[in-house]
Amino acid sequence: MLVKRLSILGVGLLGGSLGMAAKAAVSGCRVVGYSHRSSTLQRALEIGAIDEAADSPAEAADGADLVVLCTPVGVLGQMIEAIRPRLASSAVVTDVGSTKKSVVEVGDKLLNGRFVGSHPMAGSEKRGVEFARADLFRGAVCITTPTPTTDGGAVEAVEGFWRTLGMRLTRLDPTEHDRVLAEVSHLPHVVAGALVAMQSEEGLNLCGKGFVDTTRVAGGDGALWRDILLDNRDNLLAAIGKLKQNLGVVEAMVKAGDGDGLTRWLEQQAGRRDDLVRRKLKELEG
Amino acid sequence: MLVKRLSILGVGLLGGSLGMAAKAAVSGCRVVGYSHRSSTLQRALEIGAIDEAADSPAEAADGADLVVLCTPVGVLGQMIEAIRPRLASSAVVTDVGSTKKSVVEVGDKLLNGRFVGSHPMAGSEKRGVEFARADLFRGAVCITTPTPTTDGGAVEAVEGFWRTLGMRLTRLDPTEHDRVLAEVSHLPHVVAGALVAMQSEEGLNLCGKGFVDTTRVAGGDGALWRDILLDNRDNLLAAIGKLKQNLGVVEAMVKAGDGDGLTRWLEQQAGRRDDLVRRKLKELEG
Repeated sequence: MLVKRLSILGVGLLGGSLGMAAKAAVSGCRVVGYSHRSSTLQRALEIGAIDEAADSPAEAADGADLVVLCTPVGVLGQMIEAIRPRLASSAVVTDVGSTKKSVVEVGDKLLNGRFVGSHPMAGSEKRGVEFARADLFRGAVCITTPTPTTDGGAVEAVEGFWRTLGMRLTRLDPTEHDRVLAEVSHLPHVVAGALVAMQSEEGLNLCGKGFVDTTRVAGGDGALWRDILLDNRDNLLAAIGKLKQNLGVVEAMVKAGDGDGLTRWLEQQAGRRDDLVRRKLKELEG
Repeated sequence: MLVKRLSILGVGLLGGSLGMAAKAAVSGCRVVGYSHRSSTLQRALEIGAIDEAADSPAEAADGADLVVLCTPVGVLGQMIEAIRPRLASSAVVTDVGSTKKSVVEVGDKLLNGRFVGSHPMAGSEKRGVEFARADLFRGAVCITTPTPTTDGGAVEAVEGFWRTLGMRLTRLDPTEHDRVLAEVSHLPHVVAGALVAMQSEEGLNLCGKGFVDTTRVAGGDGALWRDILLDNRDNLLAAIGKLKQNLGVVEAMVKAGDGDGLTRWLEQQAGRRDDLVRRKLKELEG
């Protein structure tokens, strides 16, 4: 599919970066944006993230080949309902939300196979369109979550679009996506917050570079993460339980003074993480 | 005190960096090093981290104005016993360990007020003298933990030495030090490891930059961290309990669907961390 008219609903950090990236990578692509905050929309125009500002989601979607929902997870369903009456029959809709099961259910029900869930694994703890950048997606993984209901051509269109922006594609079942992401993304966010929450002022004054890095993701937007955590509630609770179990393993070794066991455990996690970093570097080179 | 002869026991990343930093900052300072691994000692000589290699801890300490123990926490006590017979009466001894109560107890008992506990909050998840660098300590905090037993001149000498290397000094009671550090450093290390341990291979394959950052400290040396965790056992167990309590707060809000509470909690931690980062940047500038 040739994306001649791209509609972006929600032009914050992700939506703004998407507009910039699409304009750089897709020749002749005209980008129309919508934001419920007029100041954000104005700023997106000024920095060239979008070519046109629309007054409503429906207006933004009108005549678009591809609509990308970049709003918080909690309003994705409403967005789909809002744009549906004005969508062209050939239009394809996707999103960039961090949870997939709930939005895919709405998309499958309302958009006749033309909705494809996407989760580009790119972002930042920074907030707002002023931090948008055209290379945000390059080299990162994008997960798509087609279902038996999804139209094959729509999947190809969406995956081709992300590929054009330099992303590496992988597919997951929406339910499986939410389970895995709860463990590798949503839980770490909660943990970073809890590590900050539990510190005394004295502790924060004395903390080293390690603490600053460990808690970086806690700097994210509150309302955006509230939506993610509530939408992925059961998986998140299971992931918290799994973490507590793993902390219990360390507790038991520390209580028992099991030095050999501790060393083995620590070396194992260090090794696993080293492998991970090596793999990530290779991906970026490739 | 003019440090004309500096003795470094343990010339890994920290000890090697210390030698480099002292040679750059203290004019006329001669550095003698010891390592139980001859290859490490050889490498420290080659890269100029030390001027002389000693065959034993006692030999390294002989004639030194200042001895800095840079071995793992678990052998600091033995090191003090080993060097004691050869120490000059005017010599001052300090260390760089991540726990302070146990080493300060031994130092107070055996070194007649000439031992001053230090914890320079500098380091890296990298291991080995090949990653040593002269600027490792610059701008970072160094905690000293003098006790009523400690000689005032020895405290001044040690604090003056760290200041010469560009560190910012602060004092804490050894017991208080270990309690605070369990929360802000030792627990985050365990948590990073547990977050890696609990992931499926699929999760690791799909993880984003956030996960890589959150778990960076899990890349540290196993045996070194085993010593720290076991030495600070009670405080660590208390800190794990405190984290679980804080995770419980999130669990309760997620279970209850308390969106306002979650947003408030998330914004609070994000704000606290933003303040922290601002403060750290200011410190580096100052």
